[in-house]
Amino acid sequence: MARDSVLTRAVRIFDAFDPDHPSLSVSEIARRTGLHVATASRLVEELVRHGLLARDERRRVRVGLRMWELASRAAPTLGLREAAMPFMEDLHAVTGHHTQLGVLDGREVLFVERLSMPNAVINLTRIAGRLPLHASSSGLVLLAHAPAGLQEDVLAGELAAFTPSTVVDPRRLRALLADVRRGGVALCPGYIDERATGIAVPIRGPGGKVIAALSVVVPNDAGARAQVPALKAAARGISRAVGADVL
Amino acid sequence: MARDSVLTRAVRIFDAFDPDHPSLSVSEIARRTGLHVATASRLVEELVRHGLLARDERRRVRVGLRMWELASRAAPTLGLREAAMPFMEDLHAVTGHHTQLGVLDGREVLFVERLSMPNAVINLTRIAGRLPLHASSSGLVLLAHAPAGLQEDVLAGELAAFTPSTVVDPRRLRALLADVRRGGVALCPGYIDERATGIAVPIRGPGGKVIAALSVVVPNDAGARAQVPALKAAARGISRAVGADVL
Repeated sequence: MARDSVLTRAVRIFDAFDPDHPSLSVSEIARRTGLHVATASRLVEELVRHGLLARDERRRVRVGLRMWELASRAAPTLGLREAAMPFMEDLHAVTGHHTQLGVLDGREVLFVERLSMPNAVINLTRIAGRLPLHASSSGLVLLAHAPAGLQEDVLAGELAAFTPSTVVDPRRLRALLADVRRGGVALCPGYIDERATGIAVPIRGPGGKVIAALSVVVPNDAGARAQVPALKAAARGISRAVGADVL
Repeated sequence: MARDSVLTRAVRIFDAFDPDHPSLSVSEIARRTGLHVATASRLVEELVRHGLLARDERRRVRVGLRMWELASRAAPTLGLREAAMPFMEDLHAVTGHHTQLGVLDGREVLFVERLSMPNAVINLTRIAGRLPLHASSSGLVLLAHAPAGLQEDVLAGELAAFTPSTVVDPRRLRALLADVRRGGVALCPGYIDERATGIAVPIRGPGGKVIAALSVVVPNDAGARAQVPALKAAARGISRAVGADVL
């Protein structure tokens, strides 16, 4: 096997950080990446020199401001996010719960924006976090409008259950996707956490293509469905702002 | 001179993208980075394989979702941003103008969050954008609380004027920094653009250290100063949320 390239190893190092591990020692990095300590140490030094990683007062390593800057200045979702933000703020103010924006990446939904309040209902999503397509409301919206090949792949693959409410039967999932296309909304009570209901609607880009999902996470109770009109209205506004013909 | 490392060249490639150039052809990348086309092409291919860059339908190159994900998932400013967002949303709703959050990076302010409306007053700042410390309200707040060495460096360095209103005289700047420390606010009418006034206040972290600047950009008129109390109140809320003793 060929030796990993510098870039492959750098990606493994960045991949070792997550919201629960925002700072790591070099030995933790070595353990989490499977790199030798000497290799990890050398590469961390070089990444720190570029500002892509940074060391804090305790010499622990963090993602650097420069890395964030290079990735964010021309981020692929910047236009979508700027168009969505005013509508997301209003939706967030009205519902008082988590409001988020997700895009399809591979076989997962990647959340590119999230507004939340500290005391809102439980929410597993995070900015730059991922959830599987079949279990989350945003994922179901994106999957419902994905190419048939991806739908078949996901339905034929492993379908993990987060709770007893998660739909993991391929036949039921197929019917659910049809419902989502027909109703223009995915309503998922307890699919990810029994206490929460995810509700997602599609955001369309030019040509009517679904480019993202707008979602809220609210308590899993009878009031959840009442959020749908506000969510649909916000999604129309965002779609119009990114140039879709929403009529 | 030693040959540039792969990482150095990769950083130069990412540095070629900005909000005005979110997609580039390989030959544009070569021109903007000074790399040979063959070198740029090879490295772009490898970065695309890792998802750090992506190609659109027209084979133009963009920053990849994976790059954004790796930089954002454990971004150094994530905690600050999450703490600040609810206060920024309220401030944005009340003032109706641009609201932004900036941190000190080198001799510049780096903006880590921005809420804006399409029809608000002109604003040169962008997410992951930078402005010089001496000319922007956020920069003056950060500089006023920076180590004396950095202050002296900036005052002794080149002080570019954006408009005739930009303060570029070191003596006047020194007095201005003292005013900012005393009054707890930087009010900068027309310093960056004659039509706009930047107003910034400090956000403090644990121990009382200034860790960021919260700012609004409003029209350059007599009403600008009326925004100060709302801005100060929001900054206190954010400081408290990140664990500062604000009393």
